[in-house]
Amino acid sequence: MTEIIRPIPMEKLVSLCKRRGFIFQSSEVYGGLGSTWDYGPLGVELKRNLKELWWHDNIHSREDIVGLDAAILMHPKVWDASGHLEGFSDPMVECRSCNHRFRTDQLRSQDATCPDCGGSFTESRMFNLMFKTFMGPVEDTASTVYLRPETAQGMFVNFVNVLQSTRKKLPFGIGQIGKAFRNEITPGNFVFRTREFEQMEIEFFVMPGTDDAWHKKWVQDRLNWYIHYGIRSENIQLREHNAEELAHYAKATVDIEYRFPWGWGELEGIANRTDFDLQRHSSYSGEQLSYFDETTGQHIIPYIIEPSGGVDRAALTFLYDAYREEEVVSANGKKERRVVLQLHPLLAPVKIAVLPLSRHPDLVPLAREVFLRLQDLGRWQLEYDDSQSIGRRYRRFDEIGTPYCVTIDFQSLEDSQVTIRDRNDMLQTRIPIAGLEAEFNQRFHH
Amino acid sequence: MTEIIRPIPMEKLVSLCKRRGFIFQSSEVYGGLGSTWDYGPLGVELKRNLKELWWHDNIHSREDIVGLDAAILMHPKVWDASGHLEGFSDPMVECRSCNHRFRTDQLRSQDATCPDCGGSFTESRMFNLMFKTFMGPVEDTASTVYLRPETAQGMFVNFVNVLQSTRKKLPFGIGQIGKAFRNEITPGNFVFRTREFEQMEIEFFVMPGTDDAWHKKWVQDRLNWYIHYGIRSENIQLREHNAEELAHYAKATVDIEYRFPWGWGELEGIANRTDFDLQRHSSYSGEQLSYFDETTGQHIIPYIIEPSGGVDRAALTFLYDAYREEEVVSANGKKERRVVLQLHPLLAPVKIAVLPLSRHPDLVPLAREVFLRLQDLGRWQLEYDDSQSIGRRYRRFDEIGTPYCVTIDFQSLEDSQVTIRDRNDMLQTRIPIAGLEAEFNQRFHH
Repeated sequence: MTEIIRPIPMEKLVSLCKRRGFIFQSSEVYGGLGSTWDYGPLGVELKRNLKELWWHDNIHSREDIVGLDAAILMHPKVWDASGHLEGFSDPMVECRSCNHRFRTDQLRSQDATCPDCGGSFTESRMFNLMFKTFMGPVEDTASTVYLRPETAQGMFVNFVNVLQSTRKKLPFGIGQIGKAFRNEITPGNFVFRTREFEQMEIEFFVMPGTDDAWHKKWVQDRLNWYIHYGIRSENIQLREHNAEELAHYAKATVDIEYRFPWGWGELEGIANRTDFDLQRHSSYSGEQLSYFDETTGQHIIPYIIEPSGGVDRAALTFLYDAYREEEVVSANGKKERRVVLQLHPLLAPVKIAVLPLSRHPDLVPLAREVFLRLQDLGRWQLEYDDSQSIGRRYRRFDEIGTPYCVTIDFQSLEDSQVTIRDRNDMLQTRIPIAGLEAEFNQRFHH
Repeated sequence: MTEIIRPIPMEKLVSLCKRRGFIFQSSEVYGGLGSTWDYGPLGVELKRNLKELWWHDNIHSREDIVGLDAAILMHPKVWDASGHLEGFSDPMVECRSCNHRFRTDQLRSQDATCPDCGGSFTESRMFNLMFKTFMGPVEDTASTVYLRPETAQGMFVNFVNVLQSTRKKLPFGIGQIGKAFRNEITPGNFVFRTREFEQMEIEFFVMPGTDDAWHKKWVQDRLNWYIHYGIRSENIQLREHNAEELAHYAKATVDIEYRFPWGWGELEGIANRTDFDLQRHSSYSGEQLSYFDETTGQHIIPYIIEPSGGVDRAALTFLYDAYREEEVVSANGKKERRVVLQLHPLLAPVKIAVLPLSRHPDLVPLAREVFLRLQDLGRWQLEYDDSQSIGRRYRRFDEIGTPYCVTIDFQSLEDSQVTIRDRNDMLQTRIPIAGLEAEFNQRFHH
């Protein structure tokens, strides 16, 4: 196998995503809606797997982190305390001729005039990125609420509730996956920058003074997580924020970045938020969001380390990094091209495809039996497919990243053995039907 | 064991939910936000289990339904075509003295005056229940978008995308779980009626003419689903909509209702939506949302059967129906009261608690070994707890619905056996540590 195109143009992935049912443009029949996307039958499974692995690795397999699922609509004072009402803004200019709007900080220095029509710009002004809406039956300022621009605040304001109900001791964390919304001036690059997106965030509460060490540890852990699930290490890097770009709440932030075709882009940010958030919410709400340290007998405000990742960006990255076009030699010796998604087996939307060699009436009953027996275990997402030639079916499952195909042929009727074909090296191994469960238990073990 | 209180006042469940970390009032430190709720560490696990079972039973274990995850923000024309912009309204009156607002159809006939202050009402007027917001950097009508009031439309407008990418044949369905928003005039009853909520919906596409039979089948399947996961059959019923209450798109609708303390309330509605939605979107978008029937060579518009359930309502119902207060006889012969959540084992947020009899240094290492060995399997959510007396720990795990406690005592050090305590009957069985995996595999088998 030879890899024949590098780097892969993003358009190739966008096209595969639509054709195979990973990602569709939202409201496509109405011409779409500015950079909003829907996950199709395969995309939703990929995203489910991704979130499930994150939840497993960060919450279920640890005793020091618990989950939470806070509402998207929160009390407006939350955004006052957090600083979002005042400060969550981007500088924007508008072209006086074509009225296109641009983020001032994203224009290149030579763009003194509009890159679309050459017109002149208005003065730069600040534009708040929160979506606002009105709760209750009358539109007035009293009922203005915002779609949360980050899931984090739901974890801060529930700090005492979580502490009291779980009796956790420092250090401990709260993790959450959920939608957030930012009214980006210039969304784009497929699902990389969208106005509606999903976050997977941890707020890890630590003793002040231990925060630098925890920050370092989380940066390394989260980097390893992406590499563990298949991101090639040459395509991922750490970048520390310099003083100018640090958020108002952060003492230090390190971004995990991926090498996209348009340049390095943030996948996840790991911030040391200090005690900023708990202090602010304590002061704005009048409730003491503190921790009672039994060993010293003191109430303290913990520091917070926040690994904050984007689900959509991670899905995009895993897909893009897994995309290969290869030249392979087929059974009859001809050179062929194949597209293969080399997704980590635990991320793959379909884990096992069960394929009778053909629709021959002798083969189908055994193939169905194998399929149903594996499906009944409820452990792996399976697909049964008896359409088209076996070669075309292999190509289809390569293209959607299915790690293993189980093929039932005429010999299977005699020796009760089937073939497992490996997506990556296309090697085929014959094993007894009775041994399939044990074999896949081992191949898919966490 | 004797059950000592029936029916359970909802306040008892609300209090347990807060105390144990199932459900907190959202933004509680700021006084809350009109009937919005956050799921705590146990609540998020319960809801995850519930959604996982729904997804498994309706999508993964069937070959005729695929998943989807469409965006919350959709093109405004979607709501024009669906009829929501025009018709998704409730009649509302306002009190002229205290300005409280009421749904006209929810006032009792004797409420000619305000039930809160006795003031007189304004004329009844229609109030649209969709939350609106503004996409893009300027607030003008061109950029007004709505938070979806139902997930269903995302499946209708993607009908052709799903058809083309999966090559499914009729009958087949699309399933989705996601947030929806309705600006209810009078939310309330804990998480029963909230403005932000989560739906689990299936749109099942069938040949016209087969729709009545499929509708009947889905009603029965969905009723059985709730009963299968533990809802007592005397507390659940079917109720068919009469002509006046039928939605504009429906030919027939059957509600699955639960007996709440305030009366029967809808858990899920199963509607026969006919070809209304695909016809409307075809006509409003100019795209033909049809199915090519290979046997007749004709393009047809399928009928849609829609089982539409509420995740929050289901979570509330499973919790409420599982809540028991019992009088039990303790080991020393004393009568005691216990609260127990008799949740279905697959719904329980913590599946297995591993408990050393005490913190004695001889017991802890073995208990930790048992805990880590079970946790490493990644199959069940576990908790390790060595605080307090064993009796109090049993009560705590009863209260959060943990089906099994594994207790390690001094005899375990000699015979490598441990005790499994069953939440429901409190019976204790001694089994070898080496047999735990097989035992729990069997007890938790789907």
